[in-house]
Amino acid sequence: MQLNFLGTSGAKSLPLFRSQHPQSVAARQDPSRRRHPSCAYVEAEGWGLLLDAGRFDVGELLEDKPFRGVCVTHFHPDHVQGLFPLRWAAGEPFPVFAPQDEVGCADLTTWSSRLDWRRVEPFQTIDFGPFVLTPVPLNHEPCCLGWCVETPAARFAWLTDTSGLPTETLAYLRGWQPDAIAIDCTYPPRETPHPAHNDLTQVLRIHAQLAPETTWLLHLNEAILQWLEEHPDALPEGVALPVENQPLSLIHRGNLTLKS
Amino acid sequence: MQLNFLGTSGAKSLPLFRSQHPQSVAARQDPSRRRHPSCAYVEAEGWGLLLDAGRFDVGELLEDKPFRGVCVTHFHPDHVQGLFPLRWAAGEPFPVFAPQDEVGCADLTTWSSRLDWRRVEPFQTIDFGPFVLTPVPLNHEPCCLGWCVETPAARFAWLTDTSGLPTETLAYLRGWQPDAIAIDCTYPPRETPHPAHNDLTQVLRIHAQLAPETTWLLHLNEAILQWLEEHPDALPEGVALPVENQPLSLIHRGNLTLKS
Repeated sequence: MQLNFLGTSGAKSLPLFRSQHPQSVAARQDPSRRRHPSCAYVEAEGWGLLLDAGRFDVGELLEDKPFRGVCVTHFHPDHVQGLFPLRWAAGEPFPVFAPQDEVGCADLTTWSSRLDWRRVEPFQTIDFGPFVLTPVPLNHEPCCLGWCVETPAARFAWLTDTSGLPTETLAYLRGWQPDAIAIDCTYPPRETPHPAHNDLTQVLRIHAQLAPETTWLLHLNEAILQWLEEHPDALPEGVALPVENQPLSLIHRGNLTLKS
Repeated sequence: MQLNFLGTSGAKSLPLFRSQHPQSVAARQDPSRRRHPSCAYVEAEGWGLLLDAGRFDVGELLEDKPFRGVCVTHFHPDHVQGLFPLRWAAGEPFPVFAPQDEVGCADLTTWSSRLDWRRVEPFQTIDFGPFVLTPVPLNHEPCCLGWCVETPAARFAWLTDTSGLPTETLAYLRGWQPDAIAIDCTYPPRETPHPAHNDLTQVLRIHAQLAPETTWLLHLNEAILQWLEEHPDALPEGVALPVENQPLSLIHRGNLTLKS
């Protein structure tokens, strides 16, 4: 399974317009430090799949890829705004798996165009080419579903946005044994959890509970990146900041390697 | 008055994802032929103003500009989607002048952040730094307002989206005598007008009625661009395709010049 993080921030991408925060200044100077809203691309056996579409220019990034469909976690703009342009694609409609949410985002479901909406239930298993996809409930309003993505080669879970994990999701993931997860880590350690987003303390607890080979941090912003820079020993072995647009090969247990 | 067309397409920007239409193929090969959703930047006396914010990367384009506010025509995503990221800007809130539309676009008005919404009435005159701004009704659902932008140096009207012009708007513009207009020209000549967007026949009639120095065509797409390429004599003197991101100096009557 190939995995490419295309967007690893929340709505507040880096650099933030007009911000003089050191993280935004650095991102303006060094394009590799830019971070875009939630979006990942996975590919296996010639099938390409988006996990969220928070990145506006996702069409340009996918132009030469065997893109086949999208898994949406929820309808906040920073997770679906890339579908505004993508829906006007030429060619055949493509499936967009998404939670049952009547509100949606603006007119995305009214003017679907090439978006073939497929509403899913938690823990409903979906066969999609080489992928087995399983949506799992997360703790975030509106209705938000993480996505467990499985091929014969690897198991990867995309878990954003959330504060902690619901009991049934934690139980499912413990049984499923992901090779790698990517999870909302919006805040540095907090005394009390935020109701909608993880802090690092929650993430490290989940990392310990699931014991994946790698846990990547998502929904990054100026504050958490700055805190991590000032606390270089805060992340234990196996917990990492993802690099955007640098494809990885994900192979079952202990064989996670850079693609070259 | 400086004028910079940042976005001159509708929702279907160029190139369209996966399209093999000659206009999209050409736009992929030649970046100067790309067209983004509706967006223009005007500047006078150190005050910068956006007309619509259909372009997603508008923050990057404005980073070094004395940007002060936005005039929104209506709440279709291809006119406001650039506000999704822009609202999380650092610094002070900035005014966003917009029509009274209860529906809006997703959560843009619920989570305004730096967007200081100012609801306006048709023909209400607004003093904004060196600008006098007057919104004028257009023929497009939902409630849609064109924007007349005046400085001591020049008068420019941004008239998209619309099919023809309402009688009161045409009368106002005739009296106002714009130096230049930019107007929805979604379709090649049609036998019967489209209810929501201009065709070229309608645009040429408006150009003749208002007699501005220059009429620029907006809301461009593969079909109208192809038709214009195949009918090179279709545009009379004074009617032109805008070039994106090439600043112009707009000076009263007969002195419209490229900035260099």
